[in-house]
Amino acid sequence: MARATRPVVLPGQMREDDSVEKEFVKAITPRAQDFSQWYVDVVLKAELADYAPVKGCIVFRPYGYAIWERIQAELDRRFKETGHVNAYFPLFVPESFFRREAEHVAGFSPQVAWVTRGGDEDLAERLAVRPTSETVIGVMYSKWIQSYRDLPVLINQWCNVVRWEKATRPFIRTTEFLWQEGHTCHRTAEEAEEEARRMLEVYRSFVEDYLAIPVIPGEKSAGEKFAGAVRTYTIEGLMGDCRALQCATSHFLGQNFARSFDIKFLDEDGQLKYVWQTSWGISTRIVGALIMVHGDDRGLVLPPTVAPYQVVIVPIVGRDTEQVLAASREVADRLRQRFRVRLDDRPEYSPGWKFNDWEMRGVPLRLEVGPRDLAARQVTAARRDTGERTVVPMERLEEGVAELLEEVHRGLYRKALQFREANTHRVHDFGTFKSIMEGPRGFIRALWCEKPECEERIKQETGATIRCLPFGEQEEGTCVLCGEPARQVAYFARAY
Amino acid sequence: MARATRPVVLPGQMREDDSVEKEFVKAITPRAQDFSQWYVDVVLKAELADYAPVKGCIVFRPYGYAIWERIQAELDRRFKETGHVNAYFPLFVPESFFRREAEHVAGFSPQVAWVTRGGDEDLAERLAVRPTSETVIGVMYSKWIQSYRDLPVLINQWCNVVRWEKATRPFIRTTEFLWQEGHTCHRTAEEAEEEARRMLEVYRSFVEDYLAIPVIPGEKSAGEKFAGAVRTYTIEGLMGDCRALQCATSHFLGQNFARSFDIKFLDEDGQLKYVWQTSWGISTRIVGALIMVHGDDRGLVLPPTVAPYQVVIVPIVGRDTEQVLAASREVADRLRQRFRVRLDDRPEYSPGWKFNDWEMRGVPLRLEVGPRDLAARQVTAARRDTGERTVVPMERLEEGVAELLEEVHRGLYRKALQFREANTHRVHDFGTFKSIMEGPRGFIRALWCEKPECEERIKQETGATIRCLPFGEQEEGTCVLCGEPARQVAYFARAY
Repeated sequence: MARATRPVVLPGQMREDDSVEKEFVKAITPRAQDFSQWYVDVVLKAELADYAPVKGCIVFRPYGYAIWERIQAELDRRFKETGHVNAYFPLFVPESFFRREAEHVAGFSPQVAWVTRGGDEDLAERLAVRPTSETVIGVMYSKWIQSYRDLPVLINQWCNVVRWEKATRPFIRTTEFLWQEGHTCHRTAEEAEEEARRMLEVYRSFVEDYLAIPVIPGEKSAGEKFAGAVRTYTIEGLMGDCRALQCATSHFLGQNFARSFDIKFLDEDGQLKYVWQTSWGISTRIVGALIMVHGDDRGLVLPPTVAPYQVVIVPIVGRDTEQVLAASREVADRLRQRFRVRLDDRPEYSPGWKFNDWEMRGVPLRLEVGPRDLAARQVTAARRDTGERTVVPMERLEEGVAELLEEVHRGLYRKALQFREANTHRVHDFGTFKSIMEGPRGFIRALWCEKPECEERIKQETGATIRCLPFGEQEEGTCVLCGEPARQVAYFARAY
Repeated sequence: MARATRPVVLPGQMREDDSVEKEFVKAITPRAQDFSQWYVDVVLKAELADYAPVKGCIVFRPYGYAIWERIQAELDRRFKETGHVNAYFPLFVPESFFRREAEHVAGFSPQVAWVTRGGDEDLAERLAVRPTSETVIGVMYSKWIQSYRDLPVLINQWCNVVRWEKATRPFIRTTEFLWQEGHTCHRTAEEAEEEARRMLEVYRSFVEDYLAIPVIPGEKSAGEKFAGAVRTYTIEGLMGDCRALQCATSHFLGQNFARSFDIKFLDEDGQLKYVWQTSWGISTRIVGALIMVHGDDRGLVLPPTVAPYQVVIVPIVGRDTEQVLAASREVADRLRQRFRVRLDDRPEYSPGWKFNDWEMRGVPLRLEVGPRDLAARQVTAARRDTGERTVVPMERLEEGVAELLEEVHRGLYRKALQFREANTHRVHDFGTFKSIMEGPRGFIRALWCEKPECEERIKQETGATIRCLPFGEQEEGTCVLCGEPARQVAYFARAY
């Protein structure tokens, strides 16, 4: 991160009325008391986002947007490494295109925002503000693709999309959100299938390794798949309140859109054929997952990979103020070569207030520099995830910080995995199923007979949906609802 | 640029009907014959963009989008270096906010696309699709800013905007385009003024040094300034057809939006005051400038800084095919450590066809590897800007390529500057003014009495507008139109 030559604005700038230390920490609702309120408190107080003056929309404030920028940069690198290029397609989709794929339009119509007027004229045809771009991209692909030599087409787009939502929640479900959508075309079904699975794996490894969020990869049931897809793959995470969150999806579209948009190529054998397609996406809702998986009652907890500041340095002034400030600056300058660092030398706040403030903002590591540290040629480090304090000698400052950040990252993943495992229940009968969903919730791993009726009744009676059918897990047994023979393992949960 | 592990799609994939060499080059209209058609030919044939199936919109194809990505990355780095952070504000602006700043709404209303329906409901209040974001950002700033300690606020946003345009042109003027908009708040007028000028200088140095496009920086006349600004600063470039293009603008907004949106802070002296603001932006139209400033009758010419491929390697096969291909791969592998490289080893096209194709796509440097080069332990390099061919010994391949790319970059700037200077006319009387605007056009540097009537009459009679009032250029003399005493130097031109 470039060193700012002028003061950077938002993180750490508090209103004067927040300056009473105790009140400040009290202001976050405990998770056990009201998880929803805790979530909103963290989003607003850590200045990740704010409510916009437009129904269902949020503003991504600089501290929250910086997290998204890091997610974007890392994913973009991984997409390019797997051969993809970026492009940009129009925001508006003429209604007639939107209506060409029957299942797709049925799925998305209730959520569309419509432009009906441009400048001083009523439009002859309404324009949908894109809820997703399969249709408008399909029109272009039918123009660009002619021969098998034009395949595969491996295009990704970073953009905003709009879905008219009734109940919204910062990051998790908003009318407008930011995402990427990959849209690929292939010569064979096998190649498209391979691509859809490859991109699911890119997401899985990104979310698990980079964001330290354990997920269950698998396939969606027919009832939960994307409108227009043949198969939808998903990765599902478990949030701190034991509700599941779909973190990313990858779709094998078959030839559904190719037929609706006439995307054909002349194959080597001289035959005109429809292409096979995939699409895949991850959105800003993943920032919500970060908050809900790692956060605690003191506020946000960020993995060092995406934290806007990985290290905050707090000078403990009182006596030897000048020496302490000089040493703090030296520590900051050394660490800035390798890490994203914030030196909090604001004179108007006490060290204790700063500790609370930066903990609330989720900075993975705090370094304290006080007179005693000075004398001993060391700094005192405090891990955000465990609160543990250790001493780092000045002569191995960079290595010590790197090791501690590594430990925080591993610690976050381990803790999240333990939480998920402790809250995943193997269930064989519907009585237990219901009582878990009325009580502790979490994931229920159970057998399902694959009948939509059973899926539907479970949903109606417990609020739990099939989050995914995990890959390669089949067992002999009976359906958790109807008791008939079943082989398919399914993960059920109440979900965001 | 990461090395693709699977074939990357677009650049270099041609339809079979393009494979006749001569026809292929003929397909670009000569600039002298029809500059507009030349421009569209280059945009479409180099696969920079394509017309979208939505009125006035284009698709940014991967080759064109890759240029924008490089522009974005470099500008973003420069914005952050000058202390700015990114955020994201909503796409939609409720009509009532939009109407609060009178001059602003008058300026933008005719260009707004309106959302009137969401999901299944007619909206109680229409939503403007943002043509620019001063208003919705103003609402947020009034909430976030309370004390002088909250200042300055230095926020930038990368996003899409929509302006309902009647006459459109790829990149230059489209209904939807991509841009960044900086929005800052300051404690004093001086500080805001300094920021507006600082950002103009960031743009000037970026456009001149990085894109090799010479520009004239200055202030807009009152008649040409941004709707709602006190002063607008601009950088103006001269395109290959002697029309001017506004490349970026930076506005000193004074307290106009602060008053309309009630953005106040408690100053150190205990007084409640309105903030002073700036906004500044550059858009995807700058890609159009790149094409029109550097391009020639063979197609696109790209500066190495933004070229998706800086070097294309063409094996000259015929005899010793295997050795030539192996040597070409070796050259590619070595250069990929430092440059963005494309090895064109497609067997289905001739070297001559490839030369034309990559010239049309503007790749700054072509390296040919043939049996004779092999024997002499060298490659043959051809510069895109001059066509000049030189030999680079294998033992200093990297240094040789780096030097040639440097020379191409400097050569492009020099050529563009010479063109602009040759087409800038110092004019003292309106007869000459008119004949230049009816003939060769270009920039006219003349004195203006600062009366709006003279500006308006010049525009009506010649089609030329005041592009900018250059900084620090004042002279004693008479107005080019009315002949009354005048001191203000102005650059006039017909503009995009």
